[in-house]
Amino acid sequence: MNENPCTQLRHDFPIFEVSLDDQPLCYLDSAATTQKPHQVIQAVKEFYQSQNANVHRGLHTLSEQATIAYEAVRGKIAQFLNVQSREIVWTSGATASLNLIAYGLSERLNEGDVILLSPLEHHANIIPWQLAAQRTGARIELLPVDTQGILQLKQAKALIASLKPKVLSVCHASNALGNINDVAALIGSCKKLDTITVIDGAQSLLHLRPDLQQLDCDFYVFSAHKALGPTGLGGLYGRYELLNALPVYQSGGEMIDTVSFTGTTFRPAPEKFEPGTPNIAGVIGFGAALEYLMALEHDSLFQHEQALYRTLVEQLSDIDGIRIWGDTTHNVGTISFSYKKEHHYDLATLLNTHGIAVRSGHHCTQPLMAHLGIEGTIRVSLAFYNNHQDICRFIAALKDTISLLEE
Amino acid sequence: MNENPCTQLRHDFPIFEVSLDDQPLCYLDSAATTQKPHQVIQAVKEFYQSQNANVHRGLHTLSEQATIAYEAVRGKIAQFLNVQSREIVWTSGATASLNLIAYGLSERLNEGDVILLSPLEHHANIIPWQLAAQRTGARIELLPVDTQGILQLKQAKALIASLKPKVLSVCHASNALGNINDVAALIGSCKKLDTITVIDGAQSLLHLRPDLQQLDCDFYVFSAHKALGPTGLGGLYGRYELLNALPVYQSGGEMIDTVSFTGTTFRPAPEKFEPGTPNIAGVIGFGAALEYLMALEHDSLFQHEQALYRTLVEQLSDIDGIRIWGDTTHNVGTISFSYKKEHHYDLATLLNTHGIAVRSGHHCTQPLMAHLGIEGTIRVSLAFYNNHQDICRFIAALKDTISLLEE
Repeated sequence: MNENPCTQLRHDFPIFEVSLDDQPLCYLDSAATTQKPHQVIQAVKEFYQSQNANVHRGLHTLSEQATIAYEAVRGKIAQFLNVQSREIVWTSGATASLNLIAYGLSERLNEGDVILLSPLEHHANIIPWQLAAQRTGARIELLPVDTQGILQLKQAKALIASLKPKVLSVCHASNALGNINDVAALIGSCKKLDTITVIDGAQSLLHLRPDLQQLDCDFYVFSAHKALGPTGLGGLYGRYELLNALPVYQSGGEMIDTVSFTGTTFRPAPEKFEPGTPNIAGVIGFGAALEYLMALEHDSLFQHEQALYRTLVEQLSDIDGIRIWGDTTHNVGTISFSYKKEHHYDLATLLNTHGIAVRSGHHCTQPLMAHLGIEGTIRVSLAFYNNHQDICRFIAALKDTISLLEE
Repeated sequence: MNENPCTQLRHDFPIFEVSLDDQPLCYLDSAATTQKPHQVIQAVKEFYQSQNANVHRGLHTLSEQATIAYEAVRGKIAQFLNVQSREIVWTSGATASLNLIAYGLSERLNEGDVILLSPLEHHANIIPWQLAAQRTGARIELLPVDTQGILQLKQAKALIASLKPKVLSVCHASNALGNINDVAALIGSCKKLDTITVIDGAQSLLHLRPDLQQLDCDFYVFSAHKALGPTGLGGLYGRYELLNALPVYQSGGEMIDTVSFTGTTFRPAPEKFEPGTPNIAGVIGFGAALEYLMALEHDSLFQHEQALYRTLVEQLSDIDGIRIWGDTTHNVGTISFSYKKEHHYDLATLLNTHGIAVRSGHHCTQPLMAHLGIEGTIRVSLAFYNNHQDICRFIAALKDTISLLEE
């Protein structure tokens, strides 16, 4: 493990020098937000220190330079995802992206139309569709998921063929369980039916680095802060013709051609979806995150995460009373588990006394928890900056916690 | 001028050490975005370096500390505005705030109802209301503004009394002209009529530091990046009963009580308007901006800005062919002018060769420009970190530019 290039990369993340309650941080909560390399922190700092200006509006040098730097990052994420720059819309986060898409696609939904989701979805990929269904009379149907929380692909494809949904919106990877869904197969089934496909990529941008041309989805949403970037920023890809045909969502400055009190006309996408001053420093910081990632071999990061994940699964499985949820064979490196009837809250609280940062609860997936028949889980989520020692510390702390609970 | 405390404060802003094309920066574009003191830059950097975690969701120490720090800033802006914490909603910016309010108030609008705006408004305070009017059959009416761009208060009050608008939405200070509108008087007229009052405070938070209890408006929107804070963050104040009664706008995680496929219930305000991971680092940075501002005597900052502004008005007025727009007696320190028939674009381009950062164009106020019978202006906008030398450099550069144009 020591020879792994990821061991060196960990030094790029200043947070790992932090001690909490006199213990080094054992951060196993990257599905909630990733840590940031100093390259990202530095880019944000330098922007505010020496480049800060509003974009798109100014002729002065500072504003022109800020605009060029800002728009260059649109090019970078487009390159990262293998799509065109004009197909990228910046938003305040993956949640805002899903809201924009669900609002916009409502125009195409009629009474009785089917919006197909899965029980694995994050609330952000459920509620905007519930509101769209309320507005339009469309109804929500669900892809089949087994009692372990795994999508049943064969039945799912059959369901798509029989329901002929107007929209399919599913996560590429489950935030709660880490399962990688075979979205390519689902999208393939949709192609024959003119079903619009929306992929929630909040958990996949970093771990799976998808090629969207190959995936061939119509929309893909992402979050910067879950891929080494700053908070308060996300975005979406939309196939251009579909994207440009969506109605205006939020409105304001910078997205218009002309405004008058007798009528207003809008610019084409992506501008028509980007009113107001954007998160300029956020975009600049995310640009540094993308540069950082693109300079690394994705396969080696993925293999490192997977090796840690397999060790974790093995060691967890050896502990009596542990129940692991989800698909451990196709997983982005997130493990959700329960211990006997112990409340996840108690486990997480005790783990925290060892400096272990894990998440406990329903992970914004209450319908999934209901489907599994539980209230919540402990979730351990990895990123490439984790190392073998993190796993050892976690397992030791968990064993200690369990012995305390069993006393 | 040298004895002014603001002279010292300028050193808190690292951007003034920057040279552009071998000239020190003369930044006169604060209405577009303000520069950031090192306290704000440092707070953002430190958050990412040693405190970064997602908020509201974690039991682990890092997440708990981030949540406490994040929620403390809600308390700070509430204190700054003299309202309650639960009346503050974080958004991605003033534009998003206005969209949330206009969408939410649409529920109360019926065919024929009046939404009263002014011709001074920024597009962000026009288009969301145009869309609300389209949805509901309400109509937009305008407060009277003279040919110089000044609100006619007496007629405005009479118009409010006769139209009995359902909603009044006006800027506290014009972003294009700097005019301070007597919003207290307008709000007073609305009180008798049950008109809901919305104040666009994007240009007033920093310069006027309003006491909202005294102002007695129903909603007030603001932007962090226009008050020393980070980009990608804004917010709104809403009188609690009114705010809490607004329908859900964007939806997703963290704003729910329970989610199931048979029905979802929402938390009360402010949470119900804050789905997804917020701009955590942005909020932390804005907290540092508010602390910075609250440690200073607002009056002395305002007097300093006003002294610079008066010098600017006097010196500009002395130049033949200059036409100043707007109200120079009640102004936040923004001056919009034209020079003969010269295009604002040419003037700004030439000023930029002197290292002068001013804005030119319609300033996202096309209806105002149409009202004034012009295409655009040159806009010089001040903040307390400007000094007398900025004014001297600007005037000298302008005279030089004019002599070049007159050759």
